[in-house]
Amino acid sequence: MDYDALCEVQLDELRKAGNYRVFAELERKRGAYPHATRFVEDATEQVTVWCSNDYLGMGQHPAVVGAMHEALDAFGAGAGGTRNISGTTHSHVLLERELADLHGKEAALLFTSGYVSNWAALGTLAGRLPGCVVLSDEGNHASMIEGIRHSRAERQIFRHNSPEDLDRRLSALDPARPKLVAFESVYSMDGDIAPIAELCDVADKHGAMTYLDEVHGVGLYGPRGGGVAEREGIMHRLTVIEGTLGKAFGVVGGYIAASASICDFVRSFASGFIFTTALPPAVAAGALASIRHLKASGVERARHQERVAKVRRRLEAVGIPMMDNDSHIIPVMVGSAHHAKLISDRLLAEHGIYVQPINYPTVAKGTERLRITPSPVHSDDDVDRLVRALSDIWSECALARRAMAA
Amino acid sequence: MDYDALCEVQLDELRKAGNYRVFAELERKRGAYPHATRFVEDATEQVTVWCSNDYLGMGQHPAVVGAMHEALDAFGAGAGGTRNISGTTHSHVLLERELADLHGKEAALLFTSGYVSNWAALGTLAGRLPGCVVLSDEGNHASMIEGIRHSRAERQIFRHNSPEDLDRRLSALDPARPKLVAFESVYSMDGDIAPIAELCDVADKHGAMTYLDEVHGVGLYGPRGGGVAEREGIMHRLTVIEGTLGKAFGVVGGYIAASASICDFVRSFASGFIFTTALPPAVAAGALASIRHLKASGVERARHQERVAKVRRRLEAVGIPMMDNDSHIIPVMVGSAHHAKLISDRLLAEHGIYVQPINYPTVAKGTERLRITPSPVHSDDDVDRLVRALSDIWSECALARRAMAA
Repeated sequence: MDYDALCEVQLDELRKAGNYRVFAELERKRGAYPHATRFVEDATEQVTVWCSNDYLGMGQHPAVVGAMHEALDAFGAGAGGTRNISGTTHSHVLLERELADLHGKEAALLFTSGYVSNWAALGTLAGRLPGCVVLSDEGNHASMIEGIRHSRAERQIFRHNSPEDLDRRLSALDPARPKLVAFESVYSMDGDIAPIAELCDVADKHGAMTYLDEVHGVGLYGPRGGGVAEREGIMHRLTVIEGTLGKAFGVVGGYIAASASICDFVRSFASGFIFTTALPPAVAAGALASIRHLKASGVERARHQERVAKVRRRLEAVGIPMMDNDSHIIPVMVGSAHHAKLISDRLLAEHGIYVQPINYPTVAKGTERLRITPSPVHSDDDVDRLVRALSDIWSECALARRAMAA
Repeated sequence: MDYDALCEVQLDELRKAGNYRVFAELERKRGAYPHATRFVEDATEQVTVWCSNDYLGMGQHPAVVGAMHEALDAFGAGAGGTRNISGTTHSHVLLERELADLHGKEAALLFTSGYVSNWAALGTLAGRLPGCVVLSDEGNHASMIEGIRHSRAERQIFRHNSPEDLDRRLSALDPARPKLVAFESVYSMDGDIAPIAELCDVADKHGAMTYLDEVHGVGLYGPRGGGVAEREGIMHRLTVIEGTLGKAFGVVGGYIAASASICDFVRSFASGFIFTTALPPAVAAGALASIRHLKASGVERARHQERVAKVRRRLEAVGIPMMDNDSHIIPVMVGSAHHAKLISDRLLAEHGIYVQPINYPTVAKGTERLRITPSPVHSDDDVDRLVRALSDIWSECALARRAMAA
């Protein structure tokens, strides 16, 4: 049996559909980000990164990098074990306390990634609470879908951001069954924001738990960076808030914040938490420094919003089609895998601008796009070059523009 | 509905069974490991760690810590994105090349953890190769079990380390179906080693792929630290070798090494690879330095084996019951969750020795144990204190000793 050939059959299908992914090989330069070096075969070239989830540039912040240096010197590299077997360090405990405080919860629990936090927490809560039904927003991230699937609990998909559909579905369920409503605050690819309060109203009415994925919100929204739910003053209404340390906080890792009982429950039963090596203490220390900085400083968040508004305004002025939303994510709509790749390739080759094309399965076919994420570290000059490049390519490729703004 | 109360019901059951886990809170001291500080409420105390999977002490090796410092300064903290969306850095690419070379394979693929590498790779291979049947050793790690379950492929459990049972089961299957035989080299809790060559013979006879988890072998066995399969000269016989960067290599992360087609297949289809933030470049750089060091240096491996033999010999001389095996893992058998916890608590409180009790579900009920992992950085004095402490506790608690050696 030729297993390589079996693999190649499916890889060929990806290639034919234009969905085969080629990773750009980068080297970020601390202090110079969003400028980076790109490796192409034996050569290198300079690029400006416009598609990172290091939304605030905290990955190069002196407070974060400094804390990691200190922790490396003090504690060494790895944790050396699972959380239960020698891998719980003081740094992990301090970080969990900080995260609980950030979200106004009794406790928090760290995971090796945001993906694993969703997979393990949803899998465990929905899987172990007897008779639990999960109500899952149809736009939920792969990690939530996999966690719910892993739980083997009964699942219902409700219409994206629709409290009405959620209400209808919850009304039809046995009131005596445990229920879990899972959704996100900011949806990564469309950048739209959930009606969190309304969804909580419906969940409360039916006695359901609420599980909010804030991975694209934490650090970015709310007076202390607690996320969209903090901005709206409703963190206390969520049963579980899940977040990441790998986007706005600039490091890596994931977590949940919830009641002490729920965190203890996931800690005690989740395979993906129990049977894996803990994050390095230096990662925990870097994330802790990042959270503390962004709790106290609103400068990065203000500048972030200003940059996003500026890029939007400028792209709108030259008629580049964008999906509207109220967040920091700017989806430039292209509509075919072929064109998205073509534009991305030309941006890179001719303008030194790196924006990865977003294709199926990350977005639905026909909605292929460039996902642009401005950050406080993008300069006016960076913005000028981005807008000029996109405008040129749109003209040269005779791509559709939307009605010019004024 | 009181969800906290629902959680507490199951937590109480854990407590009653003696299986509720309390994490020791440590702070390793770089350069002084295995000595560490333990936090107990508001106080601290000094302990010697005897249960870490930082088997060689590479977590504090100057080459590893130095490489991480350099990378932090050069590139900053996090990768800033998934591998596809701005998160592939030169450090990741170099590390994947090094891992491919370590195992003599065409390619390698990084994951955020060993757990995720097993879950994602087995889930994808078994799930997407049409009609695939998985043959899984009954002792396999939770991450492999979850990956196989995730695949929804037909699964058969073969008797632990039994080529005969594997042969019998493969013989009964349709020769035209893809088959995947999944097993480990060193089993973590018993420390026994698989008959890899014999299992490969059987797999070959039936045209099955072989998937070997070497997480407790890499860095520790073989002339370049390629694992047990390298020591036995049979790496080329394995279709996929999976390993970790978080144990002997002292950092964090997981990987597979295999043909270019198989790595590309998993890269292209595995949800747990695609939809997650890449490891920080500094983590990749630290792991790369560790692998390169252990490829060239056999000193740590030789000293490791010497320490393990010494601890075994000394414990045997005072009649402490151990499970026999040919690896570096020393399971001191206790046989009840209650006693394992009691001994562990006394070691810590009275002797400053930290060995976490290993209870269900990590091991079967009735086989509760202390899992002792000597390392090159444990001194003769550390060994003396461990043996004396265990011997004292065994006498005071009137625990069964085995017939004294000699």
